[in-house]
Amino acid sequence: MEAGDFKDFAKAMTDYIAEYLENIRDRQVVPSVKPGYLRPLVPEQAPQQAEPWTAVMADIERVVMTGVTHWHSPRFHAYFPTANSYPAIVADMLSGAIACIGFTWIASPACTELEVVMLDWLGQMLGLPECFLARSGGEAGGVIQGTASEATLVALLGAKSRVMKRVREQHPEWTDFEITSKLVGYCNKQAHSSVERAGLLGGVKLRTLQPNNKRCLTADILREAMEEDKRNGLIPFYVVATLGTTSSCTFDALDEIGDLCMADDNVWIHVDAAYAGSAFICPEYRYLMKGIEKADSFNFNPHKWLLVNFDCSAMWLKEPRWIVDAFNVDPLYLKHDQQGSAPDYRHWQIPLGRRFRALKLWFVLRLYGVENLQKYIRKHIALAHLFEKLCLEDERFEIYEEVTMGLVCFKLKESNEVNEALLRTINGRGKIHLVPSKIDEVYFLRLAICSRFTEDKDIQESWEEIQASANEVLKSLKK
Amino acid sequence: MEAGDFKDFAKAMTDYIAEYLENIRDRQVVPSVKPGYLRPLVPEQAPQQAEPWTAVMADIERVVMTGVTHWHSPRFHAYFPTANSYPAIVADMLSGAIACIGFTWIASPACTELEVVMLDWLGQMLGLPECFLARSGGEAGGVIQGTASEATLVALLGAKSRVMKRVREQHPEWTDFEITSKLVGYCNKQAHSSVERAGLLGGVKLRTLQPNNKRCLTADILREAMEEDKRNGLIPFYVVATLGTTSSCTFDALDEIGDLCMADDNVWIHVDAAYAGSAFICPEYRYLMKGIEKADSFNFNPHKWLLVNFDCSAMWLKEPRWIVDAFNVDPLYLKHDQQGSAPDYRHWQIPLGRRFRALKLWFVLRLYGVENLQKYIRKHIALAHLFEKLCLEDERFEIYEEVTMGLVCFKLKESNEVNEALLRTINGRGKIHLVPSKIDEVYFLRLAICSRFTEDKDIQESWEEIQASANEVLKSLKK
Repeated sequence: MEAGDFKDFAKAMTDYIAEYLENIRDRQVVPSVKPGYLRPLVPEQAPQQAEPWTAVMADIERVVMTGVTHWHSPRFHAYFPTANSYPAIVADMLSGAIACIGFTWIASPACTELEVVMLDWLGQMLGLPECFLARSGGEAGGVIQGTASEATLVALLGAKSRVMKRVREQHPEWTDFEITSKLVGYCNKQAHSSVERAGLLGGVKLRTLQPNNKRCLTADILREAMEEDKRNGLIPFYVVATLGTTSSCTFDALDEIGDLCMADDNVWIHVDAAYAGSAFICPEYRYLMKGIEKADSFNFNPHKWLLVNFDCSAMWLKEPRWIVDAFNVDPLYLKHDQQGSAPDYRHWQIPLGRRFRALKLWFVLRLYGVENLQKYIRKHIALAHLFEKLCLEDERFEIYEEVTMGLVCFKLKESNEVNEALLRTINGRGKIHLVPSKIDEVYFLRLAICSRFTEDKDIQESWEEIQASANEVLKSLKK
Repeated sequence: MEAGDFKDFAKAMTDYIAEYLENIRDRQVVPSVKPGYLRPLVPEQAPQQAEPWTAVMADIERVVMTGVTHWHSPRFHAYFPTANSYPAIVADMLSGAIACIGFTWIASPACTELEVVMLDWLGQMLGLPECFLARSGGEAGGVIQGTASEATLVALLGAKSRVMKRVREQHPEWTDFEITSKLVGYCNKQAHSSVERAGLLGGVKLRTLQPNNKRCLTADILREAMEEDKRNGLIPFYVVATLGTTSSCTFDALDEIGDLCMADDNVWIHVDAAYAGSAFICPEYRYLMKGIEKADSFNFNPHKWLLVNFDCSAMWLKEPRWIVDAFNVDPLYLKHDQQGSAPDYRHWQIPLGRRFRALKLWFVLRLYGVENLQKYIRKHIALAHLFEKLCLEDERFEIYEEVTMGLVCFKLKESNEVNEALLRTINGRGKIHLVPSKIDEVYFLRLAICSRFTEDKDIQESWEEIQASANEVLKSLKK
């Protein structure tokens, strides 16, 4: 494809994208296709000859859009939001054109340096303590990971290498495998599934603890587990404190967990604020991260709620050396003269290669500005409270969890089976899309504010759709 | 940012990108900035108010481009290529607009299904046996990983879960930690550094074996290591066969390694063809992957040499269940009714979230067509042979390794120190960029054909630059 064709194609795609997003409200949020729908729509093999770009363009609706779940529709309330903004899309175009692989500083200095500075910008926006920021002049700093799952794993591996070093010194007679077999990490039973998975991947025990009746992991609960494990000869080494669980957006008691863990040098605290972290750019929500200065690492996803397209998971580490040194394999072809004077981010992550993702942050932060981003967060939270209010006005419904962010957990005051039927009915009608969750055997529905296009009227309509579905379900019950 | 501004901005960026890439030859390949160059060029904090997009556009040259290493310049010969094409950039725009997170089928059916079919297209293009393809109707199939490093780790974890299950059955008295402590994997000492790193991350022994005098890992070498380890009570479980090493692009003896490992049920063969794999779309290079049907998993990076922008690392698995089942944590909010009738790719990878990356493959394969992609590969290999010829015509130089792909390993017929001086001189002059490698204490230079803009005249010029540098170095030696 020549430059002239590229210009025509990219400009046509630009118009298509604007048209798609501005009218996304009109599309059916979840497609009605069945598994295997796509294969018959395309040839069995790649074409031998080049096709014109107009042929590809013509196939987008027919092949792709018929099977797309529209995450940016105001009718999409499932999971948590994933970000999408015009500035981020344009930034990714530039990233694709430069297409450097920023594994070392010399491999593209701008790629590393813009990331260092953007993570400082972002850290300041959240009110992170200076001990996490590169501008403090020490080894601390931020890095863009692909996902929160990777950040959790990276932190676990850092924690593991730190504790291994200490235990090796105390017990030179133990093999590494013996030490590993004694290590144990902890998280709230309501922590994200990727925490448990990080334990499996890292080959260490990871205990999921039953939280208190507010779904909150407290220092008391953690202390009891750690003391029990220590009595049994195990070595607590890692705690994930979740700020904003996926199931119901509750917050662990970070401040007191911090005090508990700081009394034990071996324990690394990783804070997973994947979704809720974006809200900390608004000072009025920072009470939810009280104690953050006691953590070893902190992570949240601008690609969820801060208008930076996936993938952009921001992670800060006080002591990156535990990861850098543990997994540092340094072949000659990757060495360079400036090693040590700037981070070589390949050591901070699982993959070797990395895209120029800091551009997305730079574009979004400048083209929105902090105030508009704050407005965006506050608007989503207000929309959640609007839905909460509507829900509470209907006495058949109850709110399952206190609403603090852009997520509302609610249910009919009926059995799990009735609520399961409600969700089936809602999703079956095809106008809006929700997913459920279950805590302590109570099944409930989650309504997340996901789209940047969502307005009051959308929430009103979503609520009417839920009411209509409830009417159907409750009527059929009475038969 | 409103849709109107987006259209203006994206179209201005389109023109900028075309201008940048079409004239990339004129830019200095590696910037002359020093570590820390960028911070003084931008404010200390994010702006409170939104800036106009023209302000961002105006800063790209000043802040970013001054610090970019131009990987797509015909003067860039370092590492291996990373792909960059117009169709892939436009596909990523669409991916950014749809911005779905394809962790399950229902989360966006098109995202999963296009990936399944594209990996079948690609697998057929390479001549992969049907036992790797989804179209064969079994569990086998392909998946897009972010990087080859992740593919190596995923394969190692699959191998580990498979062997653990078997050994648990044979030795119910052993704990998992005891079994893990006995596991041992193998690779060529010249395998990519990410293989060793996968062993560190996965917490298992990974032996790097000295290859034969052709830098090739043979069955005899592997057999000796495996037998030695078995005598010592260890359990061989994983072999990485590299097709195209990073240092010098040599190929392990996959066919005979395959025969050896198929005699031992416990051993999983993973083939890492990260760079060279793209060449297998040309039938004349498939002899280099002879024995591929004996492998358990195969990986190569279309984002290296097949014009699909990073990240797109194609991996095929005969038995994905070993990964799917081992790391399957399945919370209610991710369950859906169609589970089992289409792959839920989140189980096939380390992260949970995933972008709609199959669009890049679809666009590139259709807009180039197989024949143009084959031409592209053949042209790069011809350019490498052109450089080889120029090099051999100068009796001061020698070729260090047989040239089979787009990489030439060469050196002055002098000591390591002289060759180190040569590289310093070449890179110091700033016109072209190379990285070195060292095998068995011999230091040599690597010239990789990286850019899709590279023509004969560029190779000629790069060679003249190397000759001029050699003149400088050898002259100063004689003083």
